[in-house]
Amino acid sequence: MDNLNEHLPFLLRRENVARYEGGAVVVCDRRKYPFERAFVRCEEVEAVARVIEDMVTQGGGPSVAAVYALAMAARQAGEAPPEELRATLRRARDRLAATRPTNTSLQRLLDRALSVADEALRAGEPAEAAILAWFESFRDRYYQRAAAMGRFGAGLIQDGDGVLTMCFAETAFLFSLSFAWRDGKRIRVYTPETRPYLQGARLTAPSVHELGIPVQVITDNMPAYLMSQGKIQKYFTAADLVTLDGHVVNKIGTFQNVLAAHHHGVPFFAFSMSPDPGKPDRASIEVEERDPAEVRTCRGQRTTLDEIDAYYPAFDITPPHLVAGVITEKGVLSPYDLAHHFGGREEGA
Amino acid sequence: MDNLNEHLPFLLRRENVARYEGGAVVVCDRRKYPFERAFVRCEEVEAVARVIEDMVTQGGGPSVAAVYALAMAARQAGEAPPEELRATLRRARDRLAATRPTNTSLQRLLDRALSVADEALRAGEPAEAAILAWFESFRDRYYQRAAAMGRFGAGLIQDGDGVLTMCFAETAFLFSLSFAWRDGKRIRVYTPETRPYLQGARLTAPSVHELGIPVQVITDNMPAYLMSQGKIQKYFTAADLVTLDGHVVNKIGTFQNVLAAHHHGVPFFAFSMSPDPGKPDRASIEVEERDPAEVRTCRGQRTTLDEIDAYYPAFDITPPHLVAGVITEKGVLSPYDLAHHFGGREEGA
Repeated sequence: MDNLNEHLPFLLRRENVARYEGGAVVVCDRRKYPFERAFVRCEEVEAVARVIEDMVTQGGGPSVAAVYALAMAARQAGEAPPEELRATLRRARDRLAATRPTNTSLQRLLDRALSVADEALRAGEPAEAAILAWFESFRDRYYQRAAAMGRFGAGLIQDGDGVLTMCFAETAFLFSLSFAWRDGKRIRVYTPETRPYLQGARLTAPSVHELGIPVQVITDNMPAYLMSQGKIQKYFTAADLVTLDGHVVNKIGTFQNVLAAHHHGVPFFAFSMSPDPGKPDRASIEVEERDPAEVRTCRGQRTTLDEIDAYYPAFDITPPHLVAGVITEKGVLSPYDLAHHFGGREEGA
Repeated sequence: MDNLNEHLPFLLRRENVARYEGGAVVVCDRRKYPFERAFVRCEEVEAVARVIEDMVTQGGGPSVAAVYALAMAARQAGEAPPEELRATLRRARDRLAATRPTNTSLQRLLDRALSVADEALRAGEPAEAAILAWFESFRDRYYQRAAAMGRFGAGLIQDGDGVLTMCFAETAFLFSLSFAWRDGKRIRVYTPETRPYLQGARLTAPSVHELGIPVQVITDNMPAYLMSQGKIQKYFTAADLVTLDGHVVNKIGTFQNVLAAHHHGVPFFAFSMSPDPGKPDRASIEVEERDPAEVRTCRGQRTTLDEIDAYYPAFDITPPHLVAGVITEKGVLSPYDLAHHFGGREEGA
């Protein structure tokens, strides 16, 4: 396997997502990117929870930061008796899991980290080291799985394709673009800016540009018109959650673009490391609603008067009949066949 | 007829759109609204053309500012021989018409003003006074026509409706809301912010709020999700241009919302003072593309790096099969029946 890091832009390199440094969690500040390459150092679980809530990190970042926060909690509990340490880790897990009510992969990963800690404690070994050892190996596999998904994604892209995405579709999507480009496919990427946080404009567009692939930023109201002009052939996004019956939950706007894509015959593919066996259907989805004040500003500038009401659902839901495929490490799956592949015991969440 | 002005918010009151003041054109600066209530004073045709191009005014504003600019040009030409004055007015007309390639109502109105000036010159009367007299009477009728359209719009709104709009749908839409509200219909309005200029957040939301009607600002990627939640029952916009075969050209994003509305069974209505008899079909539409740099900023703040490419089509096109009705002063018309009503000689553009 070739060196995966070389296919990734700055933001997605392993050390730049978040890292564990001398008992502290160091998190790349994605709110400031690409204008600054800044990192936030967290020395308490609460600080990590807040950087996740405040969108300092997003996408795949919160999971990494949160597991390191558990390791930090274990270290800080020091020589406490196992029962007390377990209670501390459980509280930390609950605080961290509550930062992202919609994306259940964070909760699932934290539960696995707790199991790892628990096993270590039973064996009389230090929980911090056990969490870190397990997680570094998990991260190794994460990049290998993302690369496998990236190869499936690249296989769906044809020479000359215009590729639409939304928000910041993370490692597997960037691998797809990188592999397709390396294979000589001349592609062009369109990134809606993704209000209110502008992840498309700030994270995706500079990352694609960094890979040397042509990219254009558009505003979130433009995808349908570009499709009507014949500029877009494929639509790829990440997924914050995929239910076992094939509903794709992702950043607000994903579904709206899917409706436009469906009208124009453009297929929609969602990357998912693992559909959630604990989420059977649409009714089991909790869509996070964030502070409406965030809709009234853009990079700190007011966009309307403070007294005007606003509404901010952070995610939307695309039903399975509009999903052309869910790209997992097992291949490009039908949204109607996920229970068969992921309905059993959890592995590798 | 009741006093129409009382049904209108600050931005749409006759004196606040643009006015002719001692030989100068005074234009409300909609770029600064609602944070400032500022006016720009223009003493040359070129200055008026630039405030239109720079989006100081938009929607119905450019037509008003441009006709006053013609009156100003006639005044400044003073005692010039009729042929020289005609040439001056023709040059002014061409410069002003070029500011808005998509919205042909501006061009059509300027041509009528030229005819009025021409008739005056033939009769040996001053062109400035003739243009102003004709235009004040035109504006009287404009508000009466908008009120008639507003009553048709209000008739489509039911008690309890959630109403989606896009950009700033101007006088007829605000009349619709005002009349429906006065009739006791409890409605709620949703205004997508409308990037990149934020007309929805800055102009529509404060104007609806000023009328005392509940309104929520959302980002442009949210309408489809709100529809899936059952929050929206009607979708109304203005139209920069309606072709005789029923294509609706309006601010970018209008079409994307229509596709979402169609999926959810929400009807789409466009207000149009007059479909253009000179625009038979989609092929006759010119969609203005603006400076991509405008997509890379939001109220002066950068949203991505300067070296990232961007794309800015300012309008989109909704085909007639997705238009539930075109609201004109003649009623709520089928998009397939416009040629019957507007295909003949121009009146009242």
